[in-house]
Parts: sequence; structure tokens; C-alpha cells
Amino acid sequence: MANADSNDRRSVVVLLSGGLDSATVLAMARASGLACHALSVDYGQRHRWELDSAARVASSLGAASHRVVRVDLRAIGGSALTGHAAVPKGRTEPEIGGGIPATYVPARNLVFLSIGVGLAEVVGAAELHVGVNAVDYSGYPDCRPEFVGAFQRAADLATKAGVEGRGVAVRAPILAMTKAEIIREGVRLGVDYSLTRSCYDPDERGRACGACDACTIRRRGFDAAGVPDPTDYAEVGSD
Amino acid sequence: MANADSNDRRSVVVLLSGGLDSATVLAMARASGLACHALSVDYGQRHRWELDSAARVASSLGAASHRVVRVDLRAIGGSALTGHAAVPKGRTEPEIGGGIPATYVPARNLVFLSIGVGLAEVVGAAELHVGVNAVDYSGYPDCRPEFVGAFQRAADLATKAGVEGRGVAVRAPILAMTKAEIIREGVRLGVDYSLTRSCYDPDERGRACGACDACTIRRRGFDAAGVPDPTDYAEVGSD
Repeated sequence: MANADSNDRRSVVVLLSGGLDSATVLAMARASGLACHALSVDYGQRHRWELDSAARVASSLGAASHRVVRVDLRAIGGSALTGHAAVPKGRTEPEIGGGIPATYVPARNLVFLSIGVGLAEVVGAAELHVGVNAVDYSGYPDCRPEFVGAFQRAADLATKAGVEGRGVAVRAPILAMTKAEIIREGVRLGVDYSLTRSCYDPDERGRACGACDACTIRRRGFDAAGVPDPTDYAEVGSD
Repeated sequence: MANADSNDRRSVVVLLSGGLDSATVLAMARASGLACHALSVDYGQRHRWELDSAARVASSLGAASHRVVRVDLRAIGGSALTGHAAVPKGRTEPEIGGGIPATYVPARNLVFLSIGVGLAEVVGAAELHVGVNAVDYSGYPDCRPEFVGAFQRAADLATKAGVEGRGVAVRAPILAMTKAEIIREGVRLGVDYSLTRSCYDPDERGRACGACDACTIRRRGFDAAGVPDPTDYAEVGSD
């Protein structure tokens, strides 16, 4: 147990959106015995319900702390997720992942990873864990492995931690996994996916639309994993 | 005037803190005939007076627009500028620039440049101009040229603009200038430095303390430039 003991003394920051990918990343880090400081960003997203999910996920998986940092990306605009443009619905391949969609938020992961590295410096965490995924994804450029590598170099040069040689290692443990693989790993680790939300355009009660890219990718993931989908979909109509 | 005409059709984003460096960068871009979208960040800094200065500077130099984006870096902490720790006073070399001071804000320029690149994408600006300076500076790692270069690569990979090959070029036009050179250039271009504020710890009326690193570097810059210092210092006592 020397390794586990060593891990117990390590802490990491985990970016937690409230969706299923980052919930799985948190569960993986917790299963490795890491103390996890969860970090969510309130960036003016129309699907603010995901912040409520993030808090529940952080609690259920035993995060050491959970912070919500406000970043007003609405002041920049340029995205269906922070403005009034329509969220695309009913798309399948090759549309999904075949280009950068209207739900792209300019510089989102640059901003999120930057804040994550900043928090890691402050709490003395050696690593920042992020749930970016480049397989079953929406075609966002800032979810690709080459971005994560380039960001790592910029962060090492930008930070006191980097200058002092203890850096903050950016980890993307589900980068190359399919959505089905992610879900199966999460189920194995006890993630309660009913607490997570992926939908970009939930109704006023927080129920998923079932038709946006995020819902489509999520639904197919559960289907491919052979796991019952616990999502509360609006169009199914629970009452 | 073909070149000027070509420049007139170009727009850029300029990060504007309210201090003298970024005011000079804005003046240089304006003098090149660029349409300038000024961007300031309200990150919970104790010297919020600088945001008032930024608005005045943007107006006086004819910025095409001025946005203030809120980013709650107080939620992360770790800096004298966003918390209750004392701002160092009365320091000279080798203390100033000889190490990373308590006023370092974790990941600040990572966050600021990220938001700047995001805004540049949205407004269709080809360049992001930033007033980082590695000569007469406070020893912050995220003001070094190697950081700017690494950030450029990360931004090119993170953004839709980068993927589409039109990128956002990050420019640091005063990176290698001394503070005196910056001030002389600004005076030549008509910058009213009385509108700018550098102090980390102004009094309740916004007057500069005259003793923090930012005040010390600013004072010496005016002295070395042979330009009268227009700063309103609290300890001089105007009434």
C-alpha cells in the first residue's frame, strides 16, 4: 500500500462541469486515492442547471472542496451557449463532429484550464484533471490532445509553480476513450449518472431536450455501453 | 497611403488595465490606424480604481469599444492583489524583479490573454495587443517573451480562428522597452498619463500610495524619461 499511501498525500484539481465526462474523471481520481478540489465555472451558460449537477456530483464522489468561479463570457458573446442563437437540434454524423458548431464558446477551455492551473497553484495541487475527449465529441478544437500539450507548455511558463520547477501537470485521462468506455468506467467506479447533466438547452425544470448534440452523444453512449440511460428527458414527459 | 488605408480596415483587441503600459500600447495601435477594441478585466483586484482609469484612457484614445469582463479570481485567492495579504512597500532592487512577489496573481495573464483571444475571435480582430513588459517589471513569469510565444501556440490550437488558419496574432509591442522608453513613446503619441493608474494599493480616493512596486517602477520611469510625473500621490497630500 506504499503507493496508495503516497497518493493519499497528493491533491489535484478537477474541472467539473456537471456533465458525465468530468464526473467520470473525478471518480477516476478519487479511485486513485487523490484528494480532489473540484472547480466549476459559471460562465453565463444558458444551461446553468449543470452547476447544480456539479455540486451534487462533487458531494457524491467525496471531493475535498468545490468552488464555482464566475467568468462573464457573455460579455464576449459569440456562442449559442452564452447568447440567443439557436442551439442546433436533431443532428447526426457527419454534422456532429464534422465542423465547429454554434455551441463553440470562444476560448472556453483556454479560460477554464487557466483558472484550473491558478487554483492548483494556490492549493498546492500537483495536477489538473480535465474531462476533454476527442472521440465522441462535438468538434471543439480545444478538446484535442495537441491543444492540451500546448497549453501545458504555456502554463509551465506562466506560473510561479512552473518557474519553481514543481509545475502543474495537466491530465486528460479520458481523452482517447469512447463515450461508451467512459460510461462503463464510471459505472464500475460507482458514478451516479442521474446526477449529471449534459443538455445544452434544458427546459425550465432542468430536463434534457434530448435533441441537442450533447444529448445525442450522451444517449448513444449509454446505448453503446449497454447501460440504462438515467437522464430525465423533457420530451418523454414525466408528468 | 495604401498601407494606412489597409490598416484602417483592420481591427485589433487591446488589453487595457488602466496602467501606463497598456495605455501606451493602445496609443501605438491607434497611431497605426487600427480600430481598437479595448478589453479590461474586473478580477476582484483591490485596486479597482484602475478600471475607472481604463475607461477614461479608452475614451481619450478613441477606442472603437471598451468592454469590462468580470472574472472572480478572488474565488481562487493566492495573491496580495485579490486578498488581505499586505502589498509590499518601499522595495528597491534587487528585491523588485528579483523574485516573484506577493502581488503575483496565479494564472492572471493566462486568463487575460485567453479572454482577449476569445473577444478577438468574436469581433473578427486579427491581433491581440498586450502591454506585457520584461524590462522594468515586477518579476511576474507571465510577462516574459517565452510565455507569450507558448500562449500563441496554445491559442492557435484552441480556437476556431486558429483552426481556420486566420488565427489571432498576439503582439507585445513594448515587451523589450524600458519604462522610460515607454513613457517617451506615449508622450510622443499624446497619451495623457494623468488618466492612468499603476498603484496596487490606492487610498479611498484613488490616490497612489507611492511606495508599492508599481508606484516605484512608475516613478522611476518618469524620472528616467525626463517627463513630469502627473500621478496623484496620497502621501504628497493635495489637500
